Amino acid sequence: MEKQRTLDEVGEFGLIDILTKNFNTTKSTIKGIGDDCAVLEYSADEYQLVTTDFLLEGIHFDLVYTPLKHIGYKAVVAGISDIYAMNGTPKQIMVSIAVSAKFSVNALEQLYDGIRTACQNYKIELIGGDTSASMTGLAINITAMGTVGKDKITYRSGAKVTDLICVSGDLGGAYAGLQVLQREKAVYNQNKDSQPKLAGYEYVLQRILKPEARFDIVEKLKENNIIPTSMIDITDGLSSELFHICFDSGVGCKIYEERVPINEETGTVCAEFNLEPIIPALHGGEDYELLFTVPLSAYEAIKKIKDVAVIGNVVEKEKGLGMISRSGDFIHIKAQGWNTSEKR
Amino acid sequence: MEKQRTLDEVGEFGLIDILTKNFNTTKSTIKGIGDDCAVLEYSADEYQLVTTDFLLEGIHFDLVYTPLKHIGYKAVVAGISDIYAMNGTPKQIMVSIAVSAKFSVNALEQLYDGIRTACQNYKIELIGGDTSASMTGLAINITAMGTVGKDKITYRSGAKVTDLICVSGDLGGAYAGLQVLQREKAVYNQNKDSQPKLAGYEYVLQRILKPEARFDIVEKLKENNIIPTSMIDITDGLSSELFHICFDSGVGCKIYEERVPINEETGTVCAEFNLEPIIPALHGGEDYELLFTVPLSAYEAIKKIKDVAVIGNVVEKEKGLGMISRSGDFIHIKAQGWNTSEKR
Repeated sequence: MEKQRTLDEVGEFGLIDILTKNFNTTKSTIKGIGDDCAVLEYSADEYQLVTTDFLLEGIHFDLVYTPLKHIGYKAVVAGISDIYAMNGTPKQIMVSIAVSAKFSVNALEQLYDGIRTACQNYKIELIGGDTSASMTGLAINITAMGTVGKDKITYRSGAKVTDLICVSGDLGGAYAGLQVLQREKAVYNQNKDSQPKLAGYEYVLQRILKPEARFDIVEKLKENNIIPTSMIDITDGLSSELFHICFDSGVGCKIYEERVPINEETGTVCAEFNLEPIIPALHGGEDYELLFTVPLSAYEAIKKIKDVAVIGNVVEKEKGLGMISRSGDFIHIKAQGWNTSEKR
Repeated sequence: MEKQRTLDEVGEFGLIDILTKNFNTTKSTIKGIGDDCAVLEYSADEYQLVTTDFLLEGIHFDLVYTPLKHIGYKAVVAGISDIYAMNGTPKQIMVSIAVSAKFSVNALEQLYDGIRTACQNYKIELIGGDTSASMTGLAINITAMGTVGKDKITYRSGAKVTDLICVSGDLGGAYAGLQVLQREKAVYNQNKDSQPKLAGYEYVLQRILKPEARFDIVEKLKENNIIPTSMIDITDGLSSELFHICFDSGVGCKIYEERVPINEETGTVCAEFNLEPIIPALHGGEDYELLFTVPLSAYEAIKKIKDVAVIGNVVEKEKGLGMISRSGDFIHIKAQGWNTSEKR
């Protein structure tokens, strides 16, 4: 009998390859499985972008410390972030929820309040969905749709040697915030009368509880006539996303630890938890920042864009994926482990 | 303090109304929440249709008696059936799965084998999805997309007084098949050495395990130049779907029990379970047949289409929703209970 392979053995990306290997696409599908969004023919000068995301209680969020309104907001952000990562503009979302009887109508209204706030902030529409019972907890699926100019679409696969590697915002904050929340949950589980100590952690908590999608960066790139050669949003961590871009583009990369942007509060929290800040920045994920590459010639233009850091450059594939540490050492970057959720 | 309403109190359709009441749509969205699909502007002569469906282990399927290949196939059918119900043509699907560690890679390959078979049979493409871990069991979300001619789109809301009410295929078979499966499961749970008795139940088992979406009916309507005035697919049961069409169209209906198509095997199984066959036909659901209305003038044309039955006609709203029983009584039709899954 053939050996039954486990999910751990093949890993997540391996699983996706195995499951989807025998599916064909036609000419109306420009790009199927394998980027942040699927890309479909749409009009003479635009493509349509479509992406779908699962968010599950116990896997992607913990209701002990996450208000339902924030879960709704974050679900939308997670969906549309993939559209921005293709240099596109999100237009519509579909939201499916499966809920167990433990949820009241008022609780679900809070969830939809968060969804509505995100729709307003990002100027997108909720156009439908599905409502279902669930055996355990809350499951949410978001499908996001948008459009992108055919001359502006940015895949993971276009990075070229000598391109600059850029990231928006700062990294590792969401992971740091999660550590704080999990610590306070542990304290609360010991003593139900305790009050969580969240003062002084405002930034990192906002990073994990109410992240934003970087539409402002996509707009700034447009204003400055910069079309990235590759782009991806940082959901699983910088290392994992660098791996995707380098693998899909057939290149390597060299980044510099000292240039990876980390917020001061993230640094403070990391110190509390005896963690080198570069670790959550590389492997933490959930920051919803953009990682992208631009031609060397765009250096002067990119420098002017606030909140974008150039962290390194694209190198030949043979040189691999590396980081120059603060002490000058070359560290080989590896994408870490099985992720809870990965876009195909 | 405001009373916390439970999901049972507001019911499923009430919940959808509550959650989605403050969402607005723009002019590029022709129809948002409230039909089988959302309808978006697409090209000069076509709309785009989008729909999303949850399928959850323990709610929508039971792995004890459902092969994973069939679950994959049925998930696709459930998604694209909504596209056909708008008189459209499905083109693409996105499939998201969340799985717990109990599933082997080979098991998931079977799931995708069913998805691939359905994609081939219905000539649609899998263009992407999301893969996630799950705390318990298997959850699947299918987003289906397609197109429909602007002059052919069929909503739930267009039924007019005197229109004929038609259904494709036959009803109640899926429910009958489910009764057989549940009985055999109960026997198996009593005695793990027992073999399930499934011979003689082939038709009803196929109805529940491997339903088909009625693209052939949509094609036949097109060939005969019939554009239904309203249409919906039968997922929750004839009574529930009649309710949707009548409510959205502002009309009533009168159907005849003797004209509701029921397969002979379905009747035999119902007799075994001491069930009037009309009950699962009205309330059983999961048959994925089409319920639609056509103008009276289309009577001759509709009679020629194989596998379509005229079961009654549309009446004034004030007359309500009624069925004339075999004994000539007028029975008021009510849509039953909380459904496990309802499209918005």
